[in-house]
Amino acid sequence: MQQVFTLQELWQALAALPAPLGLVPTMGYLHLGHLSLVQRARQECASVAVSIFVNPTQFGANEDLSKYPRNLQRDLQMLKETGAHLVWTPSPEELYPAGYQTWVTVEEISRPLEGAMRPGHFRGVATVVAKLFNATRPARAYFGQKDAQQVAVLRQMTRDLSYPTEIIICPTLREADGLAMSSRNVYLTPAQRAAAPVLYRALQAAALAHQNGERRAEALREQVRAALRAEPQVRLQYVSCADYDTLQELETVQGKALLSLAAYAGETRLIDNFVLGD
Amino acid sequence: MQQVFTLQELWQALAALPAPLGLVPTMGYLHLGHLSLVQRARQECASVAVSIFVNPTQFGANEDLSKYPRNLQRDLQMLKETGAHLVWTPSPEELYPAGYQTWVTVEEISRPLEGAMRPGHFRGVATVVAKLFNATRPARAYFGQKDAQQVAVLRQMTRDLSYPTEIIICPTLREADGLAMSSRNVYLTPAQRAAAPVLYRALQAAALAHQNGERRAEALREQVRAALRAEPQVRLQYVSCADYDTLQELETVQGKALLSLAAYAGETRLIDNFVLGD
Repeated sequence: MQQVFTLQELWQALAALPAPLGLVPTMGYLHLGHLSLVQRARQECASVAVSIFVNPTQFGANEDLSKYPRNLQRDLQMLKETGAHLVWTPSPEELYPAGYQTWVTVEEISRPLEGAMRPGHFRGVATVVAKLFNATRPARAYFGQKDAQQVAVLRQMTRDLSYPTEIIICPTLREADGLAMSSRNVYLTPAQRAAAPVLYRALQAAALAHQNGERRAEALREQVRAALRAEPQVRLQYVSCADYDTLQELETVQGKALLSLAAYAGETRLIDNFVLGD
Repeated sequence: MQQVFTLQELWQALAALPAPLGLVPTMGYLHLGHLSLVQRARQECASVAVSIFVNPTQFGANEDLSKYPRNLQRDLQMLKETGAHLVWTPSPEELYPAGYQTWVTVEEISRPLEGAMRPGHFRGVATVVAKLFNATRPARAYFGQKDAQQVAVLRQMTRDLSYPTEIIICPTLREADGLAMSSRNVYLTPAQRAAAPVLYRALQAAALAHQNGERRAEALREQVRAALRAEPQVRLQYVSCADYDTLQELETVQGKALLSLAAYAGETRLIDNFVLGD
Protein backbone atom coordinates (compact mmCIF):
# COMPACT_ATOMS: atom_id res chain seq x y z
CA MET A 1 0.00 0.00 0.00
CA GLN A 2 1.38 3.36 -1.09
CA GLN A 3 0.75 6.65 0.74
CA VAL A 4 0.83 9.92 -1.26
CA PHE A 5 0.43 13.52 -0.14
CA THR A 6 0.45 15.96 -3.08
CA LEU A 7 -1.64 15.98 -6.26
CA GLN A 8 1.48 15.37 -8.33
CA GLU A 9 2.38 12.30 -6.28
CA LEU A 10 -1.22 11.11 -6.52
CA TRP A 11 -1.25 11.42 -10.31
CA GLN A 12 2.03 9.56 -10.62
CA ALA A 13 0.77 6.75 -8.38
CA LEU A 14 -2.62 6.50 -10.14
CA ALA A 15 -0.94 6.17 -13.55
CA ALA A 16 0.65 2.92 -12.32
CA LEU A 17 -2.59 1.37 -10.98
CA PRO A 18 -4.75 -0.89 -13.16
CA ALA A 19 -8.32 0.23 -13.99
CA PRO A 20 -11.08 0.24 -12.89
CA LEU A 21 -10.34 2.39 -9.85
CA GLY A 22 -12.58 2.42 -6.78
CA LEU A 23 -12.40 5.50 -4.53
CA VAL A 24 -13.35 5.55 -0.85
CA PRO A 25 -13.41 9.17 0.42
CA THR A 26 -13.05 9.46 4.21
CA MET A 27 -12.24 11.96 6.93
CA GLY A 28 -10.13 9.34 8.73
CA TYR A 29 -10.52 7.96 12.28
CA LEU A 30 -11.74 4.87 10.50
CA HIS A 31 -14.21 2.33 11.84
CA LEU A 32 -15.65 -0.91 10.47
CA GLY A 33 -18.14 1.09 8.39
CA HIS A 34 -15.28 2.67 6.41
CA LEU A 35 -13.55 -0.69 6.09
CA SER A 36 -16.73 -2.27 4.70
CA LEU A 37 -16.56 0.33 1.89
CA VAL A 38 -12.95 -0.63 1.19
CA GLN A 39 -13.87 -4.32 1.17
CA ARG A 40 -16.73 -3.73 -1.25
CA ALA A 41 -14.42 -1.69 -3.50
CA ARG A 42 -11.84 -4.49 -3.41
CA GLN A 43 -14.49 -6.92 -4.67
CA GLU A 44 -15.55 -4.67 -7.57
CA CYS A 45 -12.42 -2.78 -8.67
CA ALA A 46 -8.89 -3.69 -9.77
CA SER A 47 -7.46 -0.85 -7.64
CA VAL A 48 -8.72 0.83 -4.49
CA ALA A 49 -7.73 4.33 -3.43
CA VAL A 50 -8.74 5.82 -0.07
CA SER A 51 -8.57 9.53 0.69
CA ILE A 52 -8.19 10.74 4.26
CA PHE A 53 -8.95 14.44 4.57
CA VAL A 54 -10.78 16.31 7.31
CA ASN A 55 -12.40 18.80 4.95
CA PRO A 56 -12.53 22.23 6.63
CA THR A 57 -15.12 23.67 4.21
CA GLN A 58 -17.89 21.32 5.33
CA PHE A 59 -17.65 22.36 8.99
CA GLY A 60 -19.62 25.35 10.29
CA ALA A 61 -17.95 28.03 12.41
CA ASN A 62 -19.35 26.51 15.63
CA GLU A 63 -18.73 22.89 14.69
CA ASP A 64 -16.06 20.39 15.67
CA LEU A 65 -13.36 20.90 12.99
CA SER A 66 -10.52 21.56 15.45
CA LYS A 67 -11.39 18.65 17.74
CA TYR A 68 -12.44 16.17 15.04
CA PRO A 69 -10.76 12.88 16.07
CA ARG A 70 -7.63 11.79 14.18
CA ASN A 71 -5.34 8.78 14.31
CA LEU A 72 -3.50 8.49 11.02
CA GLN A 73 -1.15 5.69 12.03
CA ARG A 74 -4.04 3.47 13.09
CA ASP A 75 -5.98 4.39 9.90
CA LEU A 76 -3.01 3.43 7.69
CA GLN A 77 -2.60 0.11 9.48
CA MET A 78 -6.32 -0.71 9.10
CA LEU A 79 -6.31 0.20 5.40
CA LYS A 80 -3.21 -1.87 4.75
CA GLU A 81 -4.81 -4.88 6.44
CA THR A 82 -8.04 -4.36 4.46
CA GLY A 83 -6.16 -4.32 1.16
CA ALA A 84 -6.32 -0.70 -0.06
CA HIS A 85 -3.71 -0.04 -2.75
CA LEU A 86 -3.29 3.71 -2.37
CA VAL A 87 -3.94 6.17 0.46
CA TRP A 88 -4.03 9.87 -0.32
CA THR A 89 -3.58 12.18 2.67
CA PRO A 90 -3.50 15.71 1.25
CA SER A 91 -2.88 18.79 3.40
CA PRO A 92 -5.54 21.53 3.61
CA GLU A 93 -3.13 23.79 1.68
CA GLU A 94 -2.91 21.24 -1.15
CA LEU A 95 -6.69 21.18 -1.63
CA TYR A 96 -7.41 24.82 -0.73
CA PRO A 97 -4.39 26.88 -1.84
CA ALA A 98 -4.17 30.64 -1.35
CA GLY A 99 -6.70 32.44 -3.54
CA TYR A 100 -9.08 29.46 -3.59
CA GLN A 101 -12.50 30.66 -4.85
CA THR A 102 -14.46 27.85 -6.58
CA TRP A 103 -17.55 26.13 -5.17
CA VAL A 104 -19.85 23.34 -6.27
CA THR A 105 -23.42 23.91 -5.14
CA VAL A 106 -26.23 21.36 -5.37
CA GLU A 107 -29.34 23.39 -4.78
CA GLU A 108 -32.78 21.96 -3.81
CA ILE A 109 -31.66 18.65 -2.34
CA SER A 110 -29.09 20.37 -0.07
CA ARG A 111 -31.69 22.61 1.58
CA PRO A 112 -33.75 20.51 4.04
CA LEU A 113 -32.64 18.35 7.01
CA GLU A 114 -28.86 18.49 7.56
CA GLY A 115 -28.62 21.37 5.07
CA ALA A 116 -31.07 23.44 7.12
CA MET A 117 -29.25 22.67 10.38
CA ARG A 118 -25.72 23.06 8.97
CA PRO A 119 -25.68 25.99 6.48
CA GLY A 120 -22.90 25.59 3.93
CA HIS A 121 -22.21 21.98 4.93
CA PHE A 122 -23.24 20.43 1.61
CA ARG A 123 -21.48 23.12 -0.42
CA GLY A 124 -18.30 21.97 1.33
CA VAL A 125 -19.12 18.30 0.81
CA ALA A 126 -20.02 18.69 -2.88
CA THR A 127 -16.93 20.81 -3.53
CA VAL A 128 -14.46 18.46 -1.88
CA VAL A 129 -15.98 15.33 -3.41
CA ALA A 130 -15.91 16.98 -6.86
CA LYS A 131 -12.22 17.69 -6.21
CA LEU A 132 -11.58 14.08 -5.13
CA PHE A 133 -13.41 12.80 -8.24
CA ASN A 134 -11.46 15.18 -10.50
CA ALA A 135 -8.11 14.30 -8.97
CA THR A 136 -8.61 10.52 -9.00
CA ARG A 137 -11.11 9.92 -11.86
CA PRO A 138 -12.63 6.82 -10.25
CA ALA A 139 -14.88 4.33 -12.02
CA ARG A 140 -16.79 3.86 -8.77
CA ALA A 141 -16.97 5.74 -5.47
CA TYR A 142 -18.18 4.26 -2.20
CA PHE A 143 -20.24 5.99 0.49
CA GLY A 144 -22.15 4.84 3.57
CA GLN A 145 -25.95 5.07 3.86
CA LYS A 146 -25.39 6.47 7.38
CA ASP A 147 -24.99 9.94 5.80
CA ALA A 148 -28.23 9.63 3.84
CA GLN A 149 -28.56 13.22 2.64
CA GLN A 150 -24.87 13.36 1.73
CA VAL A 151 -25.46 10.33 -0.46
CA ALA A 152 -28.51 12.01 -2.06
CA VAL A 153 -26.57 15.24 -2.70
CA LEU A 154 -23.61 13.37 -4.20
CA ARG A 155 -25.81 11.21 -6.42
CA GLN A 156 -27.48 14.39 -7.70
CA MET A 157 -24.09 16.08 -8.20
CA THR A 158 -22.65 13.09 -10.03
CA ARG A 159 -25.60 12.96 -12.42
CA ASP A 160 -25.78 16.74 -12.91
CA LEU A 161 -22.04 17.23 -13.49
CA SER A 162 -21.83 14.33 -15.99
CA TYR A 163 -19.31 12.28 -14.03
CA PRO A 164 -18.82 8.77 -15.45
CA THR A 165 -18.40 7.62 -11.84
CA GLU A 166 -20.83 5.12 -10.35
CA ILE A 167 -21.92 5.94 -6.79
CA ILE A 168 -22.11 2.81 -4.62
CA ILE A 169 -24.08 3.13 -1.38
CA CYS A 170 -23.19 0.64 1.35
CA PRO A 171 -25.36 -0.20 4.38
CA THR A 172 -24.84 1.50 7.73
CA LEU A 173 -22.76 -0.62 10.09
CA ARG A 174 -23.96 -0.72 13.71
CA GLU A 175 -22.55 -1.59 17.09
CA ALA A 176 -24.04 -4.66 18.83
CA ASP A 177 -26.64 -2.44 20.56
CA GLY A 178 -27.73 -0.79 17.31
CA LEU A 179 -25.83 2.52 17.50
CA ALA A 180 -24.71 3.51 13.99
CA MET A 181 -20.92 3.50 13.73
CA SER A 182 -19.49 7.02 13.53
CA SER A 183 -16.12 8.60 14.17
CA ARG A 184 -17.98 11.06 16.41
CA ASN A 185 -19.17 8.32 18.82
CA VAL A 186 -15.82 8.77 20.58
CA TYR A 187 -17.13 12.11 21.91
CA LEU A 188 -19.82 10.35 23.98
CA THR A 189 -19.52 9.98 27.76
CA PRO A 190 -20.29 6.49 29.08
CA ALA A 191 -23.81 7.57 30.09
CA GLN A 192 -24.45 9.17 26.66
CA ARG A 193 -23.03 6.10 24.93
CA ALA A 194 -25.40 3.90 26.92
CA ALA A 195 -28.35 6.10 25.96
CA ALA A 196 -27.45 6.63 22.27
CA PRO A 197 -28.98 3.39 20.89
CA VAL A 198 -32.38 4.99 21.50
CA LEU A 199 -31.93 6.54 18.01
CA TYR A 200 -31.83 3.08 16.50
CA ARG A 201 -34.71 1.79 18.59
CA ALA A 202 -36.83 4.82 17.66
CA LEU A 203 -36.22 4.27 13.93
CA GLN A 204 -36.86 0.57 14.37
CA ALA A 205 -40.21 1.21 16.07
CA ALA A 206 -41.31 3.49 13.24
CA ALA A 207 -40.06 1.03 10.60
CA LEU A 208 -42.07 -1.73 12.29
CA ALA A 209 -45.18 0.47 12.24
CA HIS A 210 -44.54 1.09 8.50
CA GLN A 211 -44.15 -2.65 7.96
CA ASN A 212 -47.47 -3.15 9.72
CA GLY A 213 -49.17 -0.80 7.28
CA GLU A 214 -48.83 2.68 8.77
CA ARG A 215 -48.51 5.08 5.79
CA ARG A 216 -49.17 8.44 7.49
CA ALA A 217 -45.73 10.10 7.57
CA GLU A 218 -46.61 12.20 10.61
CA ALA A 219 -47.59 9.09 12.57
CA LEU A 220 -44.18 7.57 11.77
CA ARG A 221 -42.40 10.77 12.83
CA GLU A 222 -44.41 10.76 16.06
CA GLN A 223 -43.28 7.19 16.76
CA VAL A 224 -39.70 8.43 16.65
CA ARG A 225 -40.45 11.48 18.82
CA ALA A 226 -42.21 9.33 21.42
CA ALA A 227 -39.30 6.89 21.65
CA LEU A 228 -36.82 9.76 22.05
CA ARG A 229 -38.92 11.46 24.76
CA ALA A 230 -38.32 8.42 26.97
CA GLU A 231 -34.53 9.03 27.02
CA PRO A 232 -33.48 12.18 28.93
CA GLN A 233 -29.81 11.88 27.84
CA VAL A 234 -30.78 12.52 24.21
CA ARG A 235 -32.72 15.47 22.74
CA LEU A 236 -34.14 15.28 19.25
CA GLN A 237 -33.19 18.03 16.78
CA TYR A 238 -35.38 16.89 13.90
CA VAL A 239 -37.14 13.82 12.57
CA SER A 240 -38.04 13.56 8.90
CA CYS A 241 -40.08 11.20 6.77
CA ALA A 242 -39.26 12.27 3.23
CA ASP A 243 -39.28 11.13 -0.37
CA TYR A 244 -36.14 9.05 -0.91
CA ASP A 245 -35.05 10.87 -4.09
CA THR A 246 -36.06 14.50 -3.47
CA LEU A 247 -35.95 14.57 0.37
CA GLN A 248 -39.22 16.53 0.39
CA GLU A 249 -41.36 15.79 3.46
CA LEU A 250 -44.20 13.38 2.82
CA GLU A 251 -47.80 13.27 3.99
CA THR A 252 -48.28 9.70 2.89
CA VAL A 253 -45.54 7.12 2.37
CA GLN A 254 -45.71 5.51 -1.05
CA GLY A 255 -42.71 3.62 -2.37
CA LYS A 256 -39.23 4.40 -1.08
CA ALA A 257 -38.96 6.90 1.78
CA LEU A 258 -36.17 8.12 4.04
CA LEU A 259 -36.89 8.19 7.77
CA SER A 260 -34.06 10.22 9.33
CA LEU A 261 -33.23 12.12 12.48
CA ALA A 262 -30.62 14.20 14.21
CA ALA A 263 -30.26 14.35 17.98
CA TYR A 264 -27.89 15.69 20.60
CA ALA A 265 -26.34 13.69 23.40
CA GLY A 266 -24.81 16.52 25.41
CA GLU A 267 -22.76 18.51 22.89
CA THR A 268 -22.42 15.59 20.49
CA ARG A 269 -24.64 15.57 17.45
CA LEU A 270 -25.73 12.16 16.15
CA ILE A 271 -27.62 11.28 12.96
CA ASP A 272 -29.19 8.05 11.79
CA ASN A 273 -31.74 6.85 9.26
CA PHE A 274 -33.72 3.92 7.88
CA VAL A 275 -34.86 3.54 4.29
CA LEU A 276 -38.53 2.49 4.22
CA GLY A 277 -40.06 0.47 1.39
CA ASP A 278 -36.68 -0.57 -0.01
CA MET B 1 -14.01 10.95 -37.37
CA GLN B 2 -16.81 9.65 -35.16
CA GLN B 3 -19.81 11.72 -34.05
CA VAL B 4 -21.51 10.87 -30.74
CA PHE B 5 -24.58 12.35 -29.06
CA THR B 6 -25.22 10.85 -25.61
CA LEU B 7 -22.90 10.49 -22.63
CA GLN B 8 -23.05 6.70 -22.95
CA GLU B 9 -21.97 6.87 -26.60
CA LEU B 10 -19.24 9.33 -25.65
CA TRP B 11 -17.86 7.05 -22.94
CA GLN B 12 -17.88 4.08 -25.27
CA ALA B 13 -16.04 6.05 -27.96
CA LEU B 14 -13.49 7.53 -25.54
CA ALA B 15 -12.60 4.08 -24.20
CA ALA B 16 -11.36 3.18 -27.69
CA LEU B 17 -9.20 6.32 -28.18
CA PRO B 18 -5.49 6.32 -27.25
CA ALA B 19 -4.31 8.71 -24.51
CA PRO B 20 -3.46 11.51 -24.05
CA LEU B 21 -6.76 13.13 -25.03
CA GLY B 22 -7.02 16.78 -26.11
CA LEU B 23 -10.43 18.45 -25.74
CA VAL B 24 -11.58 21.48 -27.74
CA PRO B 25 -14.87 22.80 -26.29
CA THR B 26 -16.87 24.92 -28.77
CA MET B 27 -20.34 26.34 -29.35
CA GLY B 28 -20.07 25.47 -33.06
CA TYR B 29 -20.33 27.79 -36.10
CA LEU B 30 -16.62 27.21 -36.32
CA HIS B 31 -14.05 29.59 -37.76
CA LEU B 32 -10.28 29.40 -38.24
CA GLY B 33 -9.77 30.31 -34.59
CA HIS B 34 -11.50 27.10 -33.48
CA LEU B 35 -9.61 25.10 -36.09
CA SER B 36 -6.28 26.47 -34.82
CA LEU B 37 -7.17 24.95 -31.44
CA VAL B 38 -7.87 21.59 -33.08
CA GLN B 39 -4.56 21.79 -34.99
CA ARG B 40 -2.65 22.56 -31.80
CA ALA B 41 -4.38 19.65 -30.02
CA ARG B 42 -3.48 17.36 -32.92
CA GLN B 43 0.20 18.28 -32.48
CA GLU B 44 0.19 17.61 -28.74
CA CYS B 45 -2.29 14.76 -28.16
CA ALA B 46 -2.80 11.23 -29.47
CA SER B 47 -6.56 11.82 -29.72
CA VAL B 48 -8.58 15.00 -30.24
CA ALA B 49 -12.22 15.37 -29.15
CA VAL B 50 -14.30 18.44 -30.02
CA SER B 51 -17.56 19.28 -28.29
CA ILE B 52 -20.20 21.38 -30.05
CA PHE B 53 -22.82 22.66 -27.64
CA VAL B 54 -24.55 26.04 -27.51
CA ASN B 55 -24.70 26.15 -23.73
CA PRO B 56 -27.99 27.76 -22.64
CA THR B 57 -26.84 28.45 -19.06
CA GLN B 58 -24.17 30.96 -20.10
CA PHE B 59 -26.64 33.19 -21.96
CA GLY B 60 -28.54 35.94 -20.15
CA ALA B 61 -32.32 36.32 -20.55
CA ASN B 62 -31.83 39.19 -23.03
CA GLU B 63 -28.95 37.64 -24.93
CA ASP B 64 -28.71 35.86 -28.27
CA LEU B 65 -29.24 32.18 -27.33
CA SER B 66 -32.14 31.61 -29.73
CA LYS B 67 -30.46 33.30 -32.68
CA TYR B 68 -26.91 32.08 -31.99
CA PRO B 69 -25.61 30.99 -35.43
CA ARG B 70 -25.46 27.26 -36.17
CA ASN B 71 -24.28 25.16 -39.10
CA LEU B 72 -23.54 21.66 -37.88
CA GLN B 73 -22.93 20.10 -41.30
CA ARG B 74 -20.27 22.67 -42.15
CA ASP B 75 -18.74 22.31 -38.65
CA LEU B 76 -18.47 18.53 -39.03
CA GLN B 77 -16.88 18.88 -42.47
CA MET B 78 -14.30 21.38 -41.15
CA LEU B 79 -13.45 19.19 -38.15
CA LYS B 80 -13.05 16.12 -40.32
CA GLU B 81 -10.67 17.99 -42.63
CA THR B 82 -8.70 19.33 -39.63
CA GLY B 83 -8.23 15.83 -38.23
CA ALA B 84 -10.43 15.68 -35.11
CA HIS B 85 -11.05 12.09 -34.03
CA LEU B 86 -14.30 12.50 -32.13
CA VAL B 87 -17.09 15.10 -32.18
CA TRP B 88 -19.57 15.21 -29.33
CA THR B 89 -22.83 17.02 -30.05
CA PRO B 90 -24.98 16.57 -26.94
CA SER B 91 -28.56 17.83 -26.72
CA PRO B 92 -29.49 20.39 -24.04
CA GLU B 93 -31.58 17.65 -22.36
CA GLU B 94 -28.51 15.37 -22.19
CA LEU B 95 -26.46 17.99 -20.31
CA TYR B 96 -29.31 19.59 -18.33
CA PRO B 97 -31.85 16.84 -17.59
CA ALA B 98 -35.09 17.50 -15.68
CA GLY B 99 -34.34 18.34 -12.03
CA TYR B 100 -30.88 19.73 -12.85
CA GLN B 101 -29.63 21.76 -9.84
CA THR B 102 -25.82 21.81 -9.63
CA TRP B 103 -23.61 24.83 -10.33
CA VAL B 104 -19.90 25.54 -10.35
CA THR B 105 -19.12 29.08 -9.25
CA VAL B 106 -15.72 30.76 -9.50
CA GLU B 107 -16.04 33.80 -7.30
CA GLU B 108 -13.71 36.84 -7.38
CA ILE B 109 -12.31 36.45 -10.89
CA SER B 110 -15.82 36.11 -12.39
CA ARG B 111 -17.02 39.45 -11.00
CA PRO B 112 -15.45 42.29 -13.06
CA LEU B 113 -15.58 42.98 -16.83
CA GLU B 114 -17.71 40.43 -18.69
CA GLY B 115 -18.99 39.08 -15.36
CA ALA B 116 -20.29 42.53 -14.39
CA MET B 117 -21.95 43.06 -17.79
CA ARG B 118 -23.33 39.51 -18.09
CA PRO B 119 -24.56 38.32 -14.66
CA GLY B 120 -24.50 34.52 -14.39
CA HIS B 121 -22.46 34.13 -17.58
CA PHE B 122 -19.37 32.65 -15.94
CA ARG B 123 -21.41 30.40 -13.66
CA GLY B 124 -22.80 28.89 -16.87
CA VAL B 125 -19.35 28.70 -18.46
CA ALA B 126 -17.66 27.14 -15.41
CA THR B 127 -20.49 24.64 -14.96
CA VAL B 128 -20.56 23.45 -18.56
CA VAL B 129 -16.77 23.24 -18.86
CA ALA B 130 -16.62 21.27 -15.59
CA LYS B 131 -19.20 18.91 -17.12
CA LEU B 132 -17.18 18.61 -20.35
CA PHE B 133 -14.02 17.90 -18.32
CA ASN B 134 -15.82 15.33 -16.17
CA ALA B 135 -17.38 13.57 -19.13
CA THR B 136 -14.21 13.44 -21.27
CA ARG B 137 -11.36 13.49 -18.69
CA PRO B 138 -8.92 15.23 -21.04
CA ALA B 139 -5.17 15.53 -20.48
CA ARG B 140 -5.28 18.98 -22.14
CA ALA B 141 -8.05 21.42 -23.03
CA TYR B 142 -7.71 24.18 -25.62
CA PHE B 143 -9.22 27.69 -25.45
CA GLY B 144 -8.71 30.92 -27.38
CA GLN B 145 -7.20 34.05 -25.82
CA LYS B 146 -10.04 36.00 -27.51
CA ASP B 147 -12.23 35.20 -24.48
CA ALA B 148 -9.62 36.43 -22.02
CA GLN B 149 -11.71 36.42 -18.85
CA GLN B 150 -13.20 33.03 -19.73
CA VAL B 151 -9.66 31.72 -19.91
CA ALA B 152 -8.82 33.30 -16.53
CA VAL B 153 -11.96 31.85 -14.92
CA LEU B 154 -11.31 28.38 -16.33
CA ARG B 155 -7.65 28.39 -15.29
CA GLN B 156 -8.76 29.31 -11.76
CA MET B 157 -11.48 26.62 -11.80
CA THR B 158 -9.08 23.96 -13.06
CA ARG B 159 -6.56 24.73 -10.32
CA ASP B 160 -9.19 25.08 -7.57
CA LEU B 161 -11.10 21.91 -8.45
CA SER B 162 -7.91 19.78 -8.69
CA TYR B 163 -8.37 18.79 -12.33
CA PRO B 164 -5.30 17.06 -13.79
CA THR B 165 -6.13 18.82 -17.06
CA GLU B 166 -3.65 21.28 -18.59
CA ILE B 167 -5.30 24.44 -19.95
CA ILE B 168 -3.70 25.51 -23.24
CA ILE B 169 -4.38 29.09 -24.36
CA CYS B 170 -4.05 29.76 -28.09
CA PRO B 171 -3.63 33.20 -29.70
CA THR B 172 -6.62 35.13 -31.08
CA LEU B 173 -6.96 34.69 -34.82
CA ARG B 174 -7.84 37.84 -36.77
CA GLU B 175 -9.28 38.76 -40.14
CA ALA B 176 -6.95 40.57 -42.57
CA ASP B 177 -8.13 43.96 -41.25
CA GLY B 178 -7.50 42.99 -37.61
CA LEU B 179 -11.05 42.10 -36.48
CA ALA B 180 -10.87 39.20 -34.02
CA MET B 181 -12.55 36.12 -35.45
CA SER B 182 -15.86 35.37 -33.73
CA SER B 183 -18.96 33.36 -34.58
CA ARG B 184 -20.92 36.52 -33.74
CA ASN B 185 -19.25 38.56 -36.53
CA VAL B 186 -21.94 37.12 -38.82
CA TYR B 187 -24.46 39.42 -37.09
CA LEU B 188 -22.69 42.56 -38.41
CA THR B 189 -24.16 44.62 -41.26
CA PRO B 190 -21.65 45.57 -43.99
CA ALA B 191 -21.25 49.05 -42.48
CA GLN B 192 -20.73 47.66 -38.99
CA ARG B 193 -18.30 45.06 -40.34
CA ALA B 194 -16.31 47.82 -42.04
CA ALA B 195 -16.20 49.80 -38.78
CA ALA B 196 -15.49 46.88 -36.41
CA PRO B 197 -11.66 46.76 -36.86
CA VAL B 198 -11.54 49.99 -34.83
CA LEU B 199 -11.47 47.68 -31.75
CA TYR B 200 -8.21 46.19 -32.95
CA ARG B 201 -6.72 49.55 -33.92
CA ALA B 202 -7.67 51.02 -30.53
CA LEU B 203 -5.96 48.17 -28.66
CA GLN B 204 -2.97 48.43 -31.00
CA ALA B 205 -2.59 52.15 -30.31
CA ALA B 206 -2.62 51.55 -26.57
CA ALA B 207 -0.21 48.62 -26.87
CA LEU B 208 2.15 50.85 -28.87
CA ALA B 209 1.97 53.51 -26.16
CA HIS B 210 2.77 50.80 -23.58
CA GLN B 211 5.68 49.62 -25.70
CA ASN B 212 6.92 53.22 -25.79
CA GLY B 213 6.96 53.34 -22.00
CA GLU B 214 3.46 54.46 -20.95
CA ARG B 215 2.73 52.71 -17.64
CA ARG B 216 -0.27 54.72 -16.39
CA ALA B 217 -3.22 52.32 -16.83
CA GLU B 218 -5.71 55.19 -17.17
CA ALA B 219 -3.67 56.74 -19.99
CA LEU B 220 -3.79 53.40 -21.84
CA ARG B 221 -7.56 53.11 -21.30
CA GLU B 222 -7.94 56.68 -22.59
CA GLN B 223 -6.03 55.75 -25.75
CA VAL B 224 -8.66 53.08 -26.40
CA ARG B 225 -11.57 55.42 -25.64
CA ALA B 226 -10.16 58.11 -27.94
CA ALA B 227 -9.77 55.66 -30.83
CA LEU B 228 -13.33 54.38 -30.35
CA ARG B 229 -14.79 57.92 -30.21
CA ALA B 230 -13.66 58.42 -33.80
CA GLU B 231 -15.96 55.61 -35.04
CA PRO B 232 -19.70 56.44 -34.81
CA GLN B 233 -20.76 52.87 -35.80
CA VAL B 234 -19.25 51.45 -32.60
CA ARG B 235 -19.98 52.44 -28.99
CA LEU B 236 -17.67 51.34 -26.19
CA GLN B 237 -19.21 49.45 -23.25
CA TYR B 238 -16.07 49.19 -21.14
CA VAL B 239 -12.31 49.31 -21.44
CA SER B 240 -10.12 47.70 -18.80
CA CYS B 241 -6.43 47.62 -18.01
CA ALA B 242 -6.14 44.93 -15.33
CA ASP B 243 -3.73 42.56 -13.67
CA TYR B 244 -3.38 39.51 -15.92
CA ASP B 245 -3.95 36.96 -13.14
CA THR B 246 -6.54 38.61 -10.87
CA LEU B 247 -8.28 40.91 -13.42
CA GLN B 248 -8.22 43.71 -10.83
CA GLU B 249 -7.95 47.18 -12.42
CA LEU B 250 -4.46 48.67 -12.33
CA GLU B 251 -3.18 52.15 -11.65
CA THR B 252 0.29 51.35 -12.94
CA VAL B 253 1.19 48.58 -15.35
CA GLN B 254 3.96 46.36 -14.04
CA GLY B 255 4.54 42.95 -15.59
CA LYS B 256 1.74 41.18 -17.42
CA ALA B 257 -1.53 43.08 -17.87
CA LEU B 258 -4.76 42.49 -19.76
CA LEU B 259 -6.05 45.36 -21.89
CA SER B 260 -9.62 44.44 -22.82
CA LEU B 261 -12.80 46.01 -24.08
CA ALA B 262 -16.40 45.34 -25.02
CA ALA B 263 -18.28 47.42 -27.56
CA TYR B 264 -21.53 47.41 -29.47
CA ALA B 265 -21.91 47.70 -33.23
CA GLY B 266 -25.67 48.15 -33.43
CA GLU B 267 -27.13 45.26 -31.39
CA THR B 268 -24.01 43.12 -31.75
CA ARG B 269 -21.66 42.93 -28.81
CA LEU B 270 -17.96 42.51 -29.63
CA ILE B 271 -15.05 41.85 -27.28
CA ASP B 272 -11.31 41.92 -27.85
CA ASN B 273 -8.09 42.13 -25.85
CA PHE B 274 -4.32 42.40 -25.93
CA VAL B 275 -1.95 41.01 -23.33
CA LEU B 276 0.63 43.67 -22.40
CA GLY B 277 4.12 42.81 -21.14
CA ASP B 278 3.90 39.21 -22.31
